Amino acid sequence: MEKVEKIISPSWIFLAEEGDEVLKDHSIVVSGGAIHDVVPTSDVFQLYEASEAYQLSNHLILPGFINAHSHSAMSLLKGYADDLPLNTWLNDHIWPAENQHVSFDFVKDGSTLAIAEMIKGGTTTFNDMYFFPEATAEVVSKVGIRANIGLGVLDFPTNYANDPEDYLTKGFAFRDQWRDHKLITTCLAPHAPYTISNKTFELINTYAEQLDLGIHMHLHETRSEVEDSIKAFGITPIQRMQDLGVLGPKLMAAHCVHVSEADAKLLSVNGVSAICNISSNMKLGSGIPDINQLLQRGINVALGTDSSASNNALDMMREMRALGLVSKGLNMRSEFLKPAELIRMATINGAKALGLDELTGSISKGKRADMIAINLDTIESQPCYEPLSSFMYSADRSSIEYVWIDGNTKLKQGQLVCLDEEDILQRTKIWQTKIKRI
Amino acid sequence: MEKVEKIISPSWIFLAEEGDEVLKDHSIVVSGGAIHDVVPTSDVFQLYEASEAYQLSNHLILPGFINAHSHSAMSLLKGYADDLPLNTWLNDHIWPAENQHVSFDFVKDGSTLAIAEMIKGGTTTFNDMYFFPEATAEVVSKVGIRANIGLGVLDFPTNYANDPEDYLTKGFAFRDQWRDHKLITTCLAPHAPYTISNKTFELINTYAEQLDLGIHMHLHETRSEVEDSIKAFGITPIQRMQDLGVLGPKLMAAHCVHVSEADAKLLSVNGVSAICNISSNMKLGSGIPDINQLLQRGINVALGTDSSASNNALDMMREMRALGLVSKGLNMRSEFLKPAELIRMATINGAKALGLDELTGSISKGKRADMIAINLDTIESQPCYEPLSSFMYSADRSSIEYVWIDGNTKLKQGQLVCLDEEDILQRTKIWQTKIKRI
Repeated sequence: MEKVEKIISPSWIFLAEEGDEVLKDHSIVVSGGAIHDVVPTSDVFQLYEASEAYQLSNHLILPGFINAHSHSAMSLLKGYADDLPLNTWLNDHIWPAENQHVSFDFVKDGSTLAIAEMIKGGTTTFNDMYFFPEATAEVVSKVGIRANIGLGVLDFPTNYANDPEDYLTKGFAFRDQWRDHKLITTCLAPHAPYTISNKTFELINTYAEQLDLGIHMHLHETRSEVEDSIKAFGITPIQRMQDLGVLGPKLMAAHCVHVSEADAKLLSVNGVSAICNISSNMKLGSGIPDINQLLQRGINVALGTDSSASNNALDMMREMRALGLVSKGLNMRSEFLKPAELIRMATINGAKALGLDELTGSISKGKRADMIAINLDTIESQPCYEPLSSFMYSADRSSIEYVWIDGNTKLKQGQLVCLDEEDILQRTKIWQTKIKRI
Repeated sequence: MEKVEKIISPSWIFLAEEGDEVLKDHSIVVSGGAIHDVVPTSDVFQLYEASEAYQLSNHLILPGFINAHSHSAMSLLKGYADDLPLNTWLNDHIWPAENQHVSFDFVKDGSTLAIAEMIKGGTTTFNDMYFFPEATAEVVSKVGIRANIGLGVLDFPTNYANDPEDYLTKGFAFRDQWRDHKLITTCLAPHAPYTISNKTFELINTYAEQLDLGIHMHLHETRSEVEDSIKAFGITPIQRMQDLGVLGPKLMAAHCVHVSEADAKLLSVNGVSAICNISSNMKLGSGIPDINQLLQRGINVALGTDSSASNNALDMMREMRALGLVSKGLNMRSEFLKPAELIRMATINGAKALGLDELTGSISKGKRADMIAINLDTIESQPCYEPLSSFMYSADRSSIEYVWIDGNTKLKQGQLVCLDEEDILQRTKIWQTKIKRI
């Protein structure tokens, strides 16, 4: 009998590989932090001897969610300014508050709050874009969540840096410090076409090519972003990115709400990943992404929450459900975006967007053990005729009871085992009192 | 000092009367099952002596939600057939399953499951339409939730009745049996224009006038319903209801998804209440209701979940959030449908639609004490800059910790005190095994 770390025996497993099949009465064997085997539960204890065995007879196991667009530290601004259009929200509320408060400690405490919420909600990897990435990395390392952390760049000064070169110098110092961490990867994160000049994009593009780094940016979030670009440059932001050589399979384009057919084709032929953040787009009144258009072009669609300041939840189950239901409603096609497809968007498609699909995003032998277990034996989820349906349409994130990242248990019986919730709440209240003073 | 039943002292109270004000540090005094007073917490213990005092220092209190369109017993068919268009879903799946299984016991057990979910989710009144209403009433009475129960009518035979007269005879027998119950009211519930003939509508209208009863029906749910009516009658269902004299302030029109300007005007001038069920409409691919159109006409808009077989959750917080976010996104107006307005739709507007607004729907002196308390001191909801925002955009139903109906405690520290969850789950599984055999 082979000795392994963990044997997890749920009722159902959805691998998030090709096809919509749900495995019944199979066990996942974890060894060395990786998915070592997936075998019928009737055989597993003849083959393996585990230090820990989980009998989860009411549970569905999924790959952990990949939140492909976040600004985690902004969770300290959750609910700070709501029901406002993006420009007012950003210029009159969020940026002034950030100018006054953003610091290493703000990012550290904000990221901690966000990571606690994300793990409780089943997120095992997040793709972050903010200031002081070294503070986020410190929390990521301590907690043991997987993260792709952006080297943020803007053309204007902030509390973090003065000019594009300063952002990049600080970013590369951060990258050098954390490059060997097993859970941390990095990418370039120029904020958006409307905050970055052509000259800076050229610099970013050069670094991206030389260092083989991904690029994470906002793209076509609002109609005015597109209109303003046409006024200033005569072309849309996507066309401008094409001219600058920024479009490519390593580009993670957050939002893609207002995309013409010509622009969708550009995203498609260049292999760009589109990262949808439908709750944030709706709440800011930016519009509703046309998923049908993106999928018909064969574009890889992943999902993100955006920040807590615009969403105001880091809940990937909400994002899946919102995208599924709204797309069915808008297209008047109930058979569009079934649960299995939405789960793939929230898992393997996210891993592909981040370039981490050899490591995570599905329950596949050899990949790292990033997984979650949802209890479907509740008043809300029963009867359970079809587990993916119960998961998608009936359950909430409060039914997520186990989260494993890189083979380690992070949530156990619904309780965080990697963070102290009371301490986080206390620190959050201190920040709230400070920030409210503006 | 006046002796009273309960003093409830939360951080915040939203009364759901006119205006968006949130009371801070006030207490609600309950006496004789009614809201006796709302006073500053600093004064309350000088004025009143209570049998029970609740110190809820992290909580927001709202009126209980009014689920204005439900088919509660169908919770046994939750997830039975998903991702299908309404006609296929109804004709090929739901109606055959109902033909095989619907009985007094099915309705009793299904209603129990639904009511457990509704109370956990903050619903204190529901407006139900189904067969065997006497079974639903039995559960309602036992549990102590408030319900407006429809006398279901169809033109074709079902397990419950043979023809319109048989439905009505059985319905009136049910009504006579339960008419003096303090938590139960009744109304007429002709299913929909496409399942009811003009002759039957005339009969229903006569009874509605003679007995001063409300009418609860489906109206303009799908585009094909409207198109088929134009083919068959030369007019839309709303125009047909106008001709038949069915439109009026006592009509609760569920759905109203595909409504022309002329039809919206008819709803408005007749004082009809529109009951939106946006999750169900989106999931069935029926479309998305145009709330802006309805509100601009001054129509009373209330919210419902529809049944668990199409939604698949009886979660009024989801309905509010979905309607708010989707309407902001579609109208590209982030300031549209703020939390206070959505909460009014889910509470006082529902009470108005059901004709129960003198009894419930807001926290007003003299009304019955139907209220809920939500804990906002969680990782998900903190920081809390504005409690209605935290409630609407960050919290889930799992943060609802207390529910009082008619002054009695039904949920306490998140636990149902009026029903046995284990027993409900066991009965549900027995039904699932039976139903799955089809």
